[in-house]
Amino acid sequence: MLLDKQQAAGRLLELEDALILCHRNPDGDTLGSGFALCRALLALGRRARVFCHDGVPEKFRYMVPEMPEFEPKTVVTVDIADAALFGGRTEEIVQKYGPVSLAIDHHPSHRPFADDLYLEGDSASCCEIIWELMQARKEDWKLDAKIAGCLYTGVATDTGCFKFSNTSPRTHRIAAELIERGADYVTINKVMFDTKTFGELKLEQMALDRLWLSEDGKIAVLTITAEMMREAGVDETMLDAITSLPRKIEGVEVGVTIKQRDETEYKVSVRTGETTSATAICARFGGGGHARAAGCQFEGLSPAAIREKLAAAAREEMGRG
Amino acid sequence: MLLDKQQAAGRLLELEDALILCHRNPDGDTLGSGFALCRALLALGRRARVFCHDGVPEKFRYMVPEMPEFEPKTVVTVDIADAALFGGRTEEIVQKYGPVSLAIDHHPSHRPFADDLYLEGDSASCCEIIWELMQARKEDWKLDAKIAGCLYTGVATDTGCFKFSNTSPRTHRIAAELIERGADYVTINKVMFDTKTFGELKLEQMALDRLWLSEDGKIAVLTITAEMMREAGVDETMLDAITSLPRKIEGVEVGVTIKQRDETEYKVSVRTGETTSATAICARFGGGGHARAAGCQFEGLSPAAIREKLAAAAREEMGRG
Repeated sequence: MLLDKQQAAGRLLELEDALILCHRNPDGDTLGSGFALCRALLALGRRARVFCHDGVPEKFRYMVPEMPEFEPKTVVTVDIADAALFGGRTEEIVQKYGPVSLAIDHHPSHRPFADDLYLEGDSASCCEIIWELMQARKEDWKLDAKIAGCLYTGVATDTGCFKFSNTSPRTHRIAAELIERGADYVTINKVMFDTKTFGELKLEQMALDRLWLSEDGKIAVLTITAEMMREAGVDETMLDAITSLPRKIEGVEVGVTIKQRDETEYKVSVRTGETTSATAICARFGGGGHARAAGCQFEGLSPAAIREKLAAAAREEMGRG
Repeated sequence: MLLDKQQAAGRLLELEDALILCHRNPDGDTLGSGFALCRALLALGRRARVFCHDGVPEKFRYMVPEMPEFEPKTVVTVDIADAALFGGRTEEIVQKYGPVSLAIDHHPSHRPFADDLYLEGDSASCCEIIWELMQARKEDWKLDAKIAGCLYTGVATDTGCFKFSNTSPRTHRIAAELIERGADYVTINKVMFDTKTFGELKLEQMALDRLWLSEDGKIAVLTITAEMMREAGVDETMLDAITSLPRKIEGVEVGVTIKQRDETEYKVSVRTGETTSATAICARFGGGGHARAAGCQFEGLSPAAIREKLAAAAREEMGRG
């Protein structure tokens, strides 16, 4: 069933021996939500553990606490919009310990898979929701600087550091409170937004040399092949920054990044301006996400063929909001 | 004399026929402060005008209101730390209409030049101060979305979009209030942080090809010559973004950008990590600024010679906080 805020706030406090699941290709919001909740439960003397099909990328490791081993009594998901985003190893876990009893999410495109759901489709991040739910029962939680740092990570990364249109006055007020709680925002922002390895710089240069731009200059497509990533010594977890690059070019309304995941599979990220729906573009290919940032995947097509499909879809969706 | 908050708040409301001066090489904070104050005075039916030695760069034009011509009765400066930052044309104006009766600033390194000064050395931006002073007498001002947008511009740009260590809980709460007042933060952030012309991308590529890195990888120096700027078709007002590039490279503690201004003059921007003072490095060469972002200038030295001086100074200041 759909929970209201008070019910959801209560449910988090009732969690015992909880296994917290994050979505595949994890980002700062799903991991920040998961580890914040995990740390908050551990601080109350409960047992809790976070699991993600793809593990925790190096740059997010600072969020990981010491987690006990135990047989989960409850399975909770954070920031997962669709069971299709579990990933195989998570599916096995859900089969073994499931069903998912509680899902906390902020994706308007959420497709229910859990017994109970708390959804705030207009929240910029899932971390924003976790904070709000904990504040609703603040006397019952023991929130420390590390928990604040996990939540800040999701609040900042899902809003492009407070730049995207999903940023609300509430987002800023929560950031203020998280900083007051000791969130190490300087280090977190430096790692999330202002750190590039030489490999990333090299990859950026290679990708820009091959940038495809539509004749009217409104659609830009960047292609990252596995070979380019090998040459630059960069792995997929380091591609977040480059994904926002095409949209940064002056005049570009739809920025597309095509990333090769293996021989035949390509992952596509779409970023759009205020007048075009990234969700609508990606939905045409079975993908989804947010209004200004969405994604989809392709199997067995060449990057050029994928680019043509995306460009055609972008042309049709452009200006439709 | 040094004013307290209530006195300063009152002084802003008393301004009649005020000429508001911004510092040379204007940034989002000095222009945001100037035009917010100017617009707020115009909204009260007063006459007010903003002047900057170097004019208003294209990307900041959205802040400029219709400004009346008149003989100024009062001269006010915003975000100007030192009379040396006036620029020649502003000096003439101060000689003609001066002295400066009121200076509002947030630079700890402020060197008094005005009859009265209101200084908040720990404020992230001058726009934060202007907002606070207007809120102290909020019933007397008529603040609209345009004014909020001007103030948001300075609040966001001087904190690197809430990333730098000068960002405080107050900064975020003010951003929340400015968004509630209608500040068009999405467009402003897109223009300030997420827009690159092909020229800028080209210049970035050229500069990175010539990046100098110290053996221990802690000091990175980027040099932008007038010829490179000509080749890329980029002017000095478009170099803000590139200035933060060296410090973004993983492991770099001191990032330096040397920009040629004319045949013999070079402008240097220094960005540092938490353990090194950018002010201290630049002070050695007669410059100044903030703890993590400062600048200085050189006359008649080659970029290579300037680089050596900066690298030597950086080595000595590194780790001294």
